[in-house]
Amino acid sequence: MDRNRIKKLIDDLRSKKIAMCKKDFLLTWEKSLPEIQATFLVADILRAMRESNISPKVWDSGIAVSNFRDNSTRTRFSFASACDLLGLYVQDLDEGKSQVAHGETVRETATMISFLTEAIGIRDDMYLGEGDRYQREVGAALDDGVKAGVLPSRPTIVNLQSDIDHPTQAMADFLHLVHYFGGLDNLKGKKITMSWAYSPSYGKPLSVPQGIIGLASRFGMDIVLAYPKGYDLIPDVVELAKKQAIDSGGSFTYVDSMDEAFKDANIVYPKSWAPYDVMLRRVPLLHAGDKEGLKELEREALANNAKFKDWECTEEKMKLTRSAAPNSSQALYMHCLPADITGVSCAAGEVAASVFDRYRDATYREASFKPYIIAAMILLGKFERPAELLESLLARGRQRTYGNF
Amino acid sequence: MDRNRIKKLIDDLRSKKIAMCKKDFLLTWEKSLPEIQATFLVADILRAMRESNISPKVWDSGIAVSNFRDNSTRTRFSFASACDLLGLYVQDLDEGKSQVAHGETVRETATMISFLTEAIGIRDDMYLGEGDRYQREVGAALDDGVKAGVLPSRPTIVNLQSDIDHPTQAMADFLHLVHYFGGLDNLKGKKITMSWAYSPSYGKPLSVPQGIIGLASRFGMDIVLAYPKGYDLIPDVVELAKKQAIDSGGSFTYVDSMDEAFKDANIVYPKSWAPYDVMLRRVPLLHAGDKEGLKELEREALANNAKFKDWECTEEKMKLTRSAAPNSSQALYMHCLPADITGVSCAAGEVAASVFDRYRDATYREASFKPYIIAAMILLGKFERPAELLESLLARGRQRTYGNF
Amino acid sequence: MDRNRIKKLIDDLRSKKIAMCKKDFLLTWEKSLPEIQATFLVADILRAMRESNISPKVWDSGIAVSNFRDNSTRTRFSFASACDLLGLYVQDLDEGKSQVAHGETVRETATMISFLTEAIGIRDDMYLGEGDRYQREVGAALDDGVKAGVLPSRPTIVNLQSDIDHPTQAMADFLHLVHYFGGLDNLKGKKITMSWAYSPSYGKPLSVPQGIIGLASRFGMDIVLAYPKGYDLIPDVVELAKKQAIDSGGSFTYVDSMDEAFKDANIVYPKSWAPYDVMLRRVPLLHAGDKEGLKELEREALANNAKFKDWECTEEKMKLTRSAAPNSSQALYMHCLPADITGVSCAAGEVAASVFDRYRDATYREASFKPYIIAAMILLGKFERPAELLESLLARGRQRTYGNF
Repeated sequence: MDRNRIKKLIDDLRSKKIAMCKKDFLLTWEKSLPEIQATFLVADILRAMRESNISPKVWDSGIAVSNFRDNSTRTRFSFASACDLLGLYVQDLDEGKSQVAHGETVRETATMISFLTEAIGIRDDMYLGEGDRYQREVGAALDDGVKAGVLPSRPTIVNLQSDIDHPTQAMADFLHLVHYFGGLDNLKGKKITMSWAYSPSYGKPLSVPQGIIGLASRFGMDIVLAYPKGYDLIPDVVELAKKQAIDSGGSFTYVDSMDEAFKDANIVYPKSWAPYDVMLRRVPLLHAGDKEGLKELEREALANNAKFKDWECTEEKMKLTRSAAPNSSQALYMHCLPADITGVSCAAGEVAASVFDRYRDATYREASFKPYIIAAMILLGKFERPAELLESLLARGRQRTYGNF
Repeated sequence: MDRNRIKKLIDDLRSKKIAMCKKDFLLTWEKSLPEIQATFLVADILRAMRESNISPKVWDSGIAVSNFRDNSTRTRFSFASACDLLGLYVQDLDEGKSQVAHGETVRETATMISFLTEAIGIRDDMYLGEGDRYQREVGAALDDGVKAGVLPSRPTIVNLQSDIDHPTQAMADFLHLVHYFGGLDNLKGKKITMSWAYSPSYGKPLSVPQGIIGLASRFGMDIVLAYPKGYDLIPDVVELAKKQAIDSGGSFTYVDSMDEAFKDANIVYPKSWAPYDVMLRRVPLLHAGDKEGLKELEREALANNAKFKDWECTEEKMKLTRSAAPNSSQALYMHCLPADITGVSCAAGEVAASVFDRYRDATYREASFKPYIIAAMILLGKFERPAELLESLLARGRQRTYGNF
Repeated sequence: MDRNRIKKLIDDLRSKKIAMCKKDFLLTWEKSLPEIQATFLVADILRAMRESNISPKVWDSGIAVSNFRDNSTRTRFSFASACDLLGLYVQDLDEGKSQVAHGETVRETATMISFLTEAIGIRDDMYLGEGDRYQREVGAALDDGVKAGVLPSRPTIVNLQSDIDHPTQAMADFLHLVHYFGGLDNLKGKKITMSWAYSPSYGKPLSVPQGIIGLASRFGMDIVLAYPKGYDLIPDVVELAKKQAIDSGGSFTYVDSMDEAFKDANIVYPKSWAPYDVMLRRVPLLHAGDKEGLKELEREALANNAKFKDWECTEEKMKLTRSAAPNSSQALYMHCLPADITGVSCAAGEVAASVFDRYRDATYREASFKPYIIAAMILLGKFERPAELLESLLARGRQRTYGNF
């Protein structure tokens, strides 16, 4: 029975030592392993409750602010779904694309939007060196507001993608893996390949690969990071992932060959990104609104990309991998979507159409965890005793859809 | 007492044999007559409940997606009001005007926005041959998602206007007629004139006249379709309406004179539209973004329109009509709004100011049914036993506005 | 205990003779003093209830329309928060910046958006002579709709800023003063200075200073209005404020020196605005879309502004003031935010950075009243017996945040 399964998950949650309340969720590596596990558990519990027609609505009213400094469809819907599930009304903060606020303005705006606000989701991934900083600036302003008695409570901030990490994506990806492999413990020893892949576009943020290696390295996995020379990630994040991998009983290897990276991999995540160096050079051009400079950088970057068109996740490359799950002879393919599919969304891209076809449903399932991960992050950021809360919601038994008609 | 009237409507609803659950509402002619009647009944019941301060909220949380590929104020508000009444939070899917998605992208986006979604409203009326197709493509993607276990349930799609039909408009229009004439049976034998009218604008979709003849022909009415030679509708829809009119015991006539069309009409619906041929030629120009070509087509179409400035609903023309209701000596004037009113919104338009003035409140009343029609379509698409559901909601008696203060 | 404090406020409210139901809140001077007091009381009660975790949600569903004809972040969030607190779903009416509707269109649109609507918030402050008129036009259309039986009830209109008044701002500002000075009676005899201040921008509306003098003059305060010659407000509003000041036992003085105005002031509100004359000349240019004319007017206005750079709220000027509250030796500084802060948001502006720094939290607290003021205006516009309603909501005791976890 579903209800018993949910109770078991709540018991698991109760056993985790966590201190997430009144904290933001900005980087997975700022959270302890029990806190990561608690987030997975709350996401699973919320999903199970909803799918058993039990409403986990905890607020009768309240605002959730979405602040998207970059376009988004998936994350926007995930955030809205999560907030609505908990009872929050989403109000968009649209600053206008040109005027990215700083300093006094950030402090003031953060306060003005928060008088009746419980959660703030921020996506700010375009400017290397700035997205994470901005989120912390907002957080500091909210702290000041609470301290000064101006805000009745501290809204929790959820990082919906920064220049450094993409925790709602990475956590959803790994909750998918937890389900796929039948438990978090089963990730230990699995070989996961985070590989650069060719794309006919440029300027894709580094946050997905960084988020993946930053989280995979917590679970004793064997991580292979692969990219053509020059497509570096933020060095500090790579260093951190290396250290974490070793500490958790796993390993971390860099190779500059996609074939080598795919060899015996149990999980492959082929995805394009812009080189660290290009992202750095882009920032002052973006700030200056230097269209000619940006065009020139794009030309250069695309020309460089074009040298690595063979970095495509093809059937041949998939054959190098090794399944770690029943009913499959190859690795699990993952992607944050949308993927650049060869012959479908572009002439040549990250993945062959036949490979993507086979894994389409799996990637959709992967994405389906995101609303629940976001809801879990909000809940854990706002409640001291989440297990007791969820137990009480389960006992309340309020239906999400009325009746049984 | 209101409660008894509502119970009677629910009893009526119970008697209808319908199979609308897990189906979309795309074209009225895909629905059986009892299903059309059931939709009217549910709309009436929801309205009566709300106006008796009984909340028909059936969802404690849940997302409704609005996807407007063309501008809209009226339908946007109707959809939002309907969804809110039932407990759904509306999240707008804004694809950007330039990038109309196809194929893989449609399939993926449809899934990504639907993890916690109950209903999707789509307006896509600009591209002849594509709007309806797009809605079916979304529906197929959702079917796939449910089949693959990726979506927990199938969101129901409501056509908020396609290239072929505008069912929320036509159904609201006819629910207005049902009330005006005191019952659906009373529409039998009434003469309804759907007439082209002059407008100083071009490119108005065909979906309203098509929707009207497609629905009027179900009820044994005598339909007169009138337009100047060349202003054809989609031939298949006209053929279908002819057949339906005869099958239901009515008739279908085409005339190319507004005067002739108005003669003895009980209901007149004078409204401009673009010729089928112009709409067809517009599609490749729109796709190519050929501004010069579009300008040229507009010039040509407007010049052609200008030949038919006498196709205006004037006092003289209204005198040719014949009332079929008490307290009026003339036909009921209808319009989906906004109308091009001569001397008010334009120098010369669809209707004389004095005629519109007399019927303004009637057209507003006509429009007032739309939110309830949309809510009925959603409810019927999501619940197997709507009569039992509504009876239970009535018994629950939850107030929409708290107390009686 | 909070509950007893709330009961006391409700008793106070019960004692006020008011007739606000089914009326709009457009100008504070159209409301009687007991009605102003009732609005303050309801705002305090709603805030106290929310902060005691008692939900004042009165609607199970219902629409609130926000119609922003000018940009806004603060007011948008305040309106959304207020509506959500009461149970309304906010649907934005976005008319597009270019097409400001008139006449027939206003009447029709007002009706079309109101079928299930409880409240409409309108911001229309750019066109002198038009904003207030537009709001009344909407109101008249809604009256017609109710009279004709087209609308089930009359949505209440809240002026979110017009060309004449900014009542949600002024009321929030004064509720802040009520709390700061320990009661409305304590405002009597206090000297409040509404002063023009230098800003490197132009075209700021007159509604804030007009709103402040229009409201301050109700409470027996000594009002000093200060601006450089030429920066007049709407003459009628100034005349009204003078009359009201005398009637309420206060005084009204105009001076053209900031130093003189600040002398012995207990409250200072230094804020830039455009001269009445410039705002008048701007209207036909805006209507004609005359970019060159607007540029020229801006050049001229900025050049004129630049003569008065010494109209800055500096430390020296603050030393001329006199505190009327414990724990402070100087006047209370107020601003509607965002302020033009010298050396922070601009090279030279309305206020010195060190002054603003000292009062930042106070200005944030000032702003925090706005959502509750708006909610109070909506509630009072929709319910005949607000005291009984609030008492009943208190007794209901529904939690805003579930449980105590």
